[in-house]
Amino acid sequence: MAHLPPAIDRLIRLLSTLPGIGRKSATRIALRLIASPEAECRELAESILTAKTRTRACSICGGLTEDDACSICRDAKRDSSIVCVVERASDILALERTSRFRGRYHVLGGLLSPLDGVGPSDLRIDALVDRAGRGELREIILALNPTTEGEATSLYIGDLLRSAGIRVTRLASGLPVGGDLDLADELTLGTALDERREL
Amino acid sequence: MAHLPPAIDRLIRLLSTLPGIGRKSATRIALRLIASPEAECRELAESILTAKTRTRACSICGGLTEDDACSICRDAKRDSSIVCVVERASDILALERTSRFRGRYHVLGGLLSPLDGVGPSDLRIDALVDRAGRGELREIILALNPTTEGEATSLYIGDLLRSAGIRVTRLASGLPVGGDLDLADELTLGTALDERREL
Repeated sequence: MAHLPPAIDRLIRLLSTLPGIGRKSATRIALRLIASPEAECRELAESILTAKTRTRACSICGGLTEDDACSICRDAKRDSSIVCVVERASDILALERTSRFRGRYHVLGGLLSPLDGVGPSDLRIDALVDRAGRGELREIILALNPTTEGEATSLYIGDLLRSAGIRVTRLASGLPVGGDLDLADELTLGTALDERREL
Repeated sequence: MAHLPPAIDRLIRLLSTLPGIGRKSATRIALRLIASPEAECRELAESILTAKTRTRACSICGGLTEDDACSICRDAKRDSSIVCVVERASDILALERTSRFRGRYHVLGGLLSPLDGVGPSDLRIDALVDRAGRGELREIILALNPTTEGEATSLYIGDLLRSAGIRVTRLASGLPVGGDLDLADELTLGTALDERREL
């Protein structure tokens, strides 16, 4: 955009690299920041750095925490015998929003993807096998994305863990609740048919 | 959201105050920032502060600049005899994107709004009258939002300037180009009818 001072132009460029922020939203945000008091800009800038430097991976599940273990791993009321395996720490938030799961989590840190050079040793799979080997686990829920990589990773982990005598499940695929049958793609609708349940 | 470390929670809260960013986008952005290298977070944080501290209002038009006068006011190729009056500095960007205007700008810094206690002395109206009084102006285009406040401000400025013998115009109201007659509200369609033009 012409006629913008270079410092604002740079800020807009950096903001537009954030997820969901295009050039237009970035411009709007940058101009709002310029118009707000310096204290507010300083607060936001400091908060970005504080969040980045204080946050680390939980030593048990790999989720986000400021301490050694995260609040879910430290919560004595949660069921230690069920572990839900997710790709990223942000997936924990999505599952927690459902309020349907009271077990613990395990963050893999990615999915198997031979084409991108991501093998089992690049993920936190060993740590999961360790947790499973302690004999406290009853069930492992694989909550990975229903994509090729997600399926491949689920199958790989399933093979590793089934021998340990632990029940291994994965999330159901099918129609989105409240969705429209008409709008579902063939794969989703086909899966919903294949995996139909008794009424 | 439960189970998020406080530093991230605070960052999400601050990000959601930005225009167009809801709680969900803010969470996505915060998690992306945490996942990116510290150098990138530092770059963004510093860029926010640099943009805020370096940018000031142009001493002539009130637009954004890092120098005393902005690049548009310093551009000798632009027509000094036409001034386009806008509410905010960001409106200059929108008008520049059209590439149809080669004159100068004047930022009011708001609109008249007696209910909110905004009177003529709170806006850069005196500075506009000063510019008009120097005898260099041929036309003033009032490019204010077609709202009650925008109309009232346009009428007020029009009265002030017409006595100086300067042509005062305002932006056309009517159907958006590429828009659908069916979707236009009654006021817009009514205005389009009232202000119809010869083919």
